[in-house]
Amino acid sequence: MEASNPSPWALLTDLYELTMAQSYLREGMHGEATFSLFARTLPPGRAYLVAAGLEDVLRYLQGLRFSPIDLDYLGSTGIFGADFLEHLKGFRFTGSVWAVPEGRLVFPNEPLLEVTAPIPEAQIVETYIINQVHLQTTIATKAARCLWAAGGRRLVDFSLRRTHGADAGLKVARASYIAGFESTSNVLAGRQYGIPIAGTMAHSYVSSFPEEIDAFRAYARTFPDASVFLIDTYDTLEGARKAAVVAREMEVAGHRLRAVRLDSGDLIALSRAVRKVMDDAGLVYVGIFASGGLDEYELETIARAGAPIGGFGVGTKMGVSADAPYLDMAYKLVKYAGHPVLKLSTGKVSLADQKQVYRGADAAGQLREDTIALRDEGMEGADQPLLARVMEGGRILHSLPSLDEIRLRFQDEFARLPHRYKALRGAPQYPVRLSPGLSALQSRLEHQLAAVAPDP
Amino acid sequence: MEASNPSPWALLTDLYELTMAQSYLREGMHGEATFSLFARTLPPGRAYLVAAGLEDVLRYLQGLRFSPIDLDYLGSTGIFGADFLEHLKGFRFTGSVWAVPEGRLVFPNEPLLEVTAPIPEAQIVETYIINQVHLQTTIATKAARCLWAAGGRRLVDFSLRRTHGADAGLKVARASYIAGFESTSNVLAGRQYGIPIAGTMAHSYVSSFPEEIDAFRAYARTFPDASVFLIDTYDTLEGARKAAVVAREMEVAGHRLRAVRLDSGDLIALSRAVRKVMDDAGLVYVGIFASGGLDEYELETIARAGAPIGGFGVGTKMGVSADAPYLDMAYKLVKYAGHPVLKLSTGKVSLADQKQVYRGADAAGQLREDTIALRDEGMEGADQPLLARVMEGGRILHSLPSLDEIRLRFQDEFARLPHRYKALRGAPQYPVRLSPGLSALQSRLEHQLAAVAPDP
Repeated sequence: MEASNPSPWALLTDLYELTMAQSYLREGMHGEATFSLFARTLPPGRAYLVAAGLEDVLRYLQGLRFSPIDLDYLGSTGIFGADFLEHLKGFRFTGSVWAVPEGRLVFPNEPLLEVTAPIPEAQIVETYIINQVHLQTTIATKAARCLWAAGGRRLVDFSLRRTHGADAGLKVARASYIAGFESTSNVLAGRQYGIPIAGTMAHSYVSSFPEEIDAFRAYARTFPDASVFLIDTYDTLEGARKAAVVAREMEVAGHRLRAVRLDSGDLIALSRAVRKVMDDAGLVYVGIFASGGLDEYELETIARAGAPIGGFGVGTKMGVSADAPYLDMAYKLVKYAGHPVLKLSTGKVSLADQKQVYRGADAAGQLREDTIALRDEGMEGADQPLLARVMEGGRILHSLPSLDEIRLRFQDEFARLPHRYKALRGAPQYPVRLSPGLSALQSRLEHQLAAVAPDP
Repeated sequence: MEASNPSPWALLTDLYELTMAQSYLREGMHGEATFSLFARTLPPGRAYLVAAGLEDVLRYLQGLRFSPIDLDYLGSTGIFGADFLEHLKGFRFTGSVWAVPEGRLVFPNEPLLEVTAPIPEAQIVETYIINQVHLQTTIATKAARCLWAAGGRRLVDFSLRRTHGADAGLKVARASYIAGFESTSNVLAGRQYGIPIAGTMAHSYVSSFPEEIDAFRAYARTFPDASVFLIDTYDTLEGARKAAVVAREMEVAGHRLRAVRLDSGDLIALSRAVRKVMDDAGLVYVGIFASGGLDEYELETIARAGAPIGGFGVGTKMGVSADAPYLDMAYKLVKYAGHPVLKLSTGKVSLADQKQVYRGADAAGQLREDTIALRDEGMEGADQPLLARVMEGGRILHSLPSLDEIRLRFQDEFARLPHRYKALRGAPQYPVRLSPGLSALQSRLEHQLAAVAPDP
């Protein structure tokens, strides 16, 4: 249970959330609404998402307050009435949340979370909820793909310089750690989340010395037991030979060079040549670390070639999810004032009512099939319900799991997902079916709507 | 000139910036370094970038301090010595910055900014500088493409829910406004930057009423002079007819419906049919506004078809720059301790030394050609120098321009860029040449390096 500090993000919302809220209040509409957050479809050839972002959502909901500065600004726009501003002054989120725990797998149309609250409250919080879950789920998924492709080699988040802003820098470090990255270069993420931090040296460091070898010697003096030399500033193999010279000087002083880093060129060929330089110098313990425009496709190629690279710095393409920088994720009204709600506009059917997801596995624990059901349908079979009640009356119900717990949860579940769904390209769709109760409701509502709307 | 508030972002840096700084200090290396920030190449078929993000960089540099919490954390990692932590305690950025003003066009290899400071300082600030300029330049460029494609129709930033986090939400609103967007849905961006805010209504609003027409009537009661009805929740043409009914009821009460909004389907065909519904009802003044997965390519198609749509909400694909979510942007050491520096690793040649860019135009003011020169080369011709000195001794030199000034600066310069460079696809490269002085230096350094490195 966290203390409720005023949120700096109360106005980080779309204007229409507030105008609609004013209209609901003027109309006396305080009915209980449930909104469901889900991804309609995934990028082509992908089967799964890794749920992430819930902790930020819960802290936001619990701490949401409009500050006097916020209210002054809203008043100055001329859009809002004194009645509504007065209402916002005492605004609290009083609703409940059911959610998929962070780190669990999610498939298309399955709710990542469902918010139930008086409709003005549930509406106002839409934008921030999508913003955080969308980003962190996008990145955790991309990072999981990288981990899988790298076949067990260790990965370090190097993306901060090109993530989309400061918040993304932090959230990318968090989400990639959930998916199994070992560490991050982002020092603030280290402070904030306790994620291990890591780094090597830059080309500028090497360039600022008269000779490359001087740079290696200087760094070794500062970090005698924690040095990784960047060897591609001028010529990679020549750099490797100089690194080997300095590594043997370090040995004499009782220290060990940790690794050398490649950041350009043909990483497979270069890593083999550099490995030979090191081995020939008796430096079998010096690792090879590589970086430079890597993503899951490159990592898979390198891993399959069996290149002697022990770890990778993965930056930009993971940090912006370069080939799929957004998801088709929506927050839809599914129930209002006791009635299930359906929206039917072109190509965008959503599943009505409050829902639960049951995850079926075989006897060996391998994931088999999911069922989306009504929350109260009572599907007591062998399958495990995926969504848990995590907030009630605007208060976080349980202490939030640590990042390491979330990371283990992901590891455990991902190990139980059959390999074919993990393919980087052309993965088949994971089987997700609707329960009898949800199917029946869905058909009934679709018929009703078709009867109302004359032009199909 | 802004007050110097402690920065919350001091640790938003890559670990290696700090380890290298510790090593520089241990080695007694305080020499003056110049780093240059530039884009090596642009995404295929694109000719220009729109510079943005400088204001955030300057405020960061001026306010940069390490807090006691930061220092405690750094101490706890075991990576840093007491000498270095003591140094960080009193750390100030004391350097100078030359930069391209925000809103100006920039072409490949032209420095967006150059930082000169003692090397540990210039190194530590690298990550945040790239992070902010990279994001805002990426988005301002994407937004400029949207504006150009929309052929003068007004555009509204609708991206907040799917930008990469909170900071990106704000910076996307800022950058798209610089490029000519009229307003944003992001309320906090309205408060923080004074950008006009705008919005309509969501499908959930319509769904929460028994009938679509009830929703329109309710919204018109709350916002009698500022309503835009979303008409595609059930059936778009039926929705248009109901909107027309309510619009005429509003007329009777002395009000006017502003517009209707389409958010799905074939926007060209639907807008024509909806226009006819409105015109037939005598509602020629009711505008049509469209949204839903739009980017510059869609906007161009719609604009070329002459669809009767007056404005667009442009969201996700602009806000994440979906087809080019990152740039090949680097911050490279170009001068150290009085000597120009070159880096030559595979495929990554950079331009040495402190530089200036001269922008050539023809007699009519149309942009013709840029020249990258040495900063002190003295190219006093007709051409205008692009980079200005904006920070000296760690202090911002001039009061920062307003967002509206930056926006006008962009508008003016973009109007002078020949149309062929604005093409959405296959734009030719803009001519950028090197000055005699820079060419000569570059050849000399490349020869020197080739002589040093035996394996080319």
